[in-house]
Amino acid sequence: MEQQVLFRAVVDLCLLIALAEVASSINARFGIPRILGTMLTGILFGPHLIGGISIGGRPLIEFNELVYVFSEVGAVLLLFTAGLHMKFSDLLQSGIASLSVALLGVVIPYFLGLAAAILLGYSWYIGMIIGGSLAATSIAISVKCLDELDKMDTSEAKCIIGAAVIDDVLALSIASVIFAATVGQSEVSTLGMIQMLGTTLLLWFVLTFVSVKFIPRGLNWVYKFNDREGHLLEIVAILICFGYATLSGRLGLSPLVGAFIAGMAIADFGGLKDISTFIEKIEILFVPLFFVVMGGSLDPRALMTGDFVLILVLSLVAIVSKLVGCGLPAAYFLKDREKGIRVGYGMMSRGEIGLVIASIGITYSIISKEVYAALIVVIFLTSLIPPFLLKRSYLKESMLCEYDQLER
Amino acid sequence: MEQQVLFRAVVDLCLLIALAEVASSINARFGIPRILGTMLTGILFGPHLIGGISIGGRPLIEFNELVYVFSEVGAVLLLFTAGLHMKFSDLLQSGIASLSVALLGVVIPYFLGLAAAILLGYSWYIGMIIGGSLAATSIAISVKCLDELDKMDTSEAKCIIGAAVIDDVLALSIASVIFAATVGQSEVSTLGMIQMLGTTLLLWFVLTFVSVKFIPRGLNWVYKFNDREGHLLEIVAILICFGYATLSGRLGLSPLVGAFIAGMAIADFGGLKDISTFIEKIEILFVPLFFVVMGGSLDPRALMTGDFVLILVLSLVAIVSKLVGCGLPAAYFLKDREKGIRVGYGMMSRGEIGLVIASIGITYSIISKEVYAALIVVIFLTSLIPPFLLKRSYLKESMLCEYDQLER
Repeated sequence: MEQQVLFRAVVDLCLLIALAEVASSINARFGIPRILGTMLTGILFGPHLIGGISIGGRPLIEFNELVYVFSEVGAVLLLFTAGLHMKFSDLLQSGIASLSVALLGVVIPYFLGLAAAILLGYSWYIGMIIGGSLAATSIAISVKCLDELDKMDTSEAKCIIGAAVIDDVLALSIASVIFAATVGQSEVSTLGMIQMLGTTLLLWFVLTFVSVKFIPRGLNWVYKFNDREGHLLEIVAILICFGYATLSGRLGLSPLVGAFIAGMAIADFGGLKDISTFIEKIEILFVPLFFVVMGGSLDPRALMTGDFVLILVLSLVAIVSKLVGCGLPAAYFLKDREKGIRVGYGMMSRGEIGLVIASIGITYSIISKEVYAALIVVIFLTSLIPPFLLKRSYLKESMLCEYDQLER
Repeated sequence: MEQQVLFRAVVDLCLLIALAEVASSINARFGIPRILGTMLTGILFGPHLIGGISIGGRPLIEFNELVYVFSEVGAVLLLFTAGLHMKFSDLLQSGIASLSVALLGVVIPYFLGLAAAILLGYSWYIGMIIGGSLAATSIAISVKCLDELDKMDTSEAKCIIGAAVIDDVLALSIASVIFAATVGQSEVSTLGMIQMLGTTLLLWFVLTFVSVKFIPRGLNWVYKFNDREGHLLEIVAILICFGYATLSGRLGLSPLVGAFIAGMAIADFGGLKDISTFIEKIEILFVPLFFVVMGGSLDPRALMTGDFVLILVLSLVAIVSKLVGCGLPAAYFLKDREKGIRVGYGMMSRGEIGLVIASIGITYSIISKEVYAALIVVIFLTSLIPPFLLKRSYLKESMLCEYDQLER
């Protein structure tokens, strides 16, 4: 990239982050979740609205390649941070709970989506695309919310994060099955599907287990070598994070899952504090852009001209299915109704994987433009709601606590 | 950029930083300046040596586009930091000193280089290219050294930084004059040249003056708006930094000069601490790459097969001319011989502008391949020496101090 172009790109990038900071500050003042401000910045200043206004032949704010690069790096860092907050022992502890939440939380939305589509008169293939798009939770928003509310270390947060990661593993497998069934029109046997899911989950577990054993030892060695003024430890941590993101991409898992495993493996390391302080600082430059880009990908016209009945029905399916599919098992295992509901809230947001499945649908002409637009809007809506619900639920809790204290 | 390619690029980037950290840690243990470790990493693992080894059709470590982007961003951040350490009042105080050091430090190397070339039997045009290549100081290395030695706030450091920035302004003007004279073969009158230098310096001064007046006010406003959990202040600071880099590039100044002006304008702002803590952390990701890339640009074969006499003579010219041209006026104005010598050391390293002028020379067939190679080697050598000399000089001082204390 030419120097002038590069620096101009950095200016656009910083401008977007600054606008997002302003929006989230304003939100915070009105008690609205910050993260929604960041996403709203993306919608408002994205290519579909203000950012796209052409001034002197160039858009006012350009979502240039650097913005996309930083946003992808931001997503990886976000999941890495989630991993840093979660020891492997935590995961094992919430193991059965997370696994049940993930399994039911993928299966129920899938079948509810499929059923809704067929009741509305669509074909089975369209139903599979719709069900698939609504199956996978997008972990980024919930992680950011929990972080914002300072609740990352609660039992329900550990359950959400663990479940969301397993959900990601499951959803990717389901996506490839749907791809085979709809595009390849090939029969996939139930046994074959279970086999595939099992292999992926096993791969994930083995990778996690090995990493948790060896990474802290390696880092101890780095820690001893590092001198007071050096920053080797911090850099090696990021190196591991992106090494795992690359590796897990190669293995057919999501890069975000790899980043999470790397973080979880480092969570057991003694010098964790240095690393997390550093990541926290650099995240300022990367993470907001992920949500800004997410917002920018929504064309508000899709909302205006969409099929309202379809959007309404699918939104209900999306919300209720995760609330039931994740909330019920969570309430059972955590033995707390309110915590269960929170897990339902936390698993509600959909994202990238859903978008990918919807895109496959429209690219191969399986679904119509209207269905595609509806799916995009629904996926987007589901990511706007959880921050409100989570915030309200925790607010209620802290008010009850105060009330209890007054009573005594 | 595709996701897998991007994450792999981030891995290469982190690997280079990690290697640089290891090398600089080892250096620090043996009392060698850290920065040389970083540059050595670039040479060793750069495309000309280990990094270039092809494994499976791809280089072992790739200097991918992201590495270059980060390195350019690093250079800007480095000069921004230098600005943060220097208030406008400091610059005015060291004004005449810095201006004299810069002026003589550009004029003397230019004419000594020209004279040496003519004595060695080269033409006037070749002499102009050689003189021009040796005229401009590269500020990055000295700033990093002074920072490493924790001497950024001494009077000689302020003199070096001030002079190096003015030097940059002068050298860019000279470069365009040389370009006009050698490539365009057009006569440039002395009056025209002085006019051009004057205009550029004036432009620089006005820009600085206006910025120092208004930026702190703007930041105060941002500071008031910013909430405890937000990071608006830090982002706006970076926005200003790159805004100025872009602007000053457009005005025909170096982007680095713009970044310095931005830093200097912010230096007067009350909430400086928050900003500099943040910049310090993110620099870890960017600045080392600038020096790694600098190292990687040296092909060690150029050193092996070069014209030794030419290299020797030009190295001597390069070293002596800055030592005299900058050291003498500095010693006079700072009223301290040792500090004057340090300014000479600090102004010794050459870099980008020299390389650009040498490249113009070879691109337009004004200089031969041998002269070009010699210039590259000399520019490189001058950047290896100052870290040693500066470190030794400060070490001597601290030993003398201890001796004095013992005497009492």
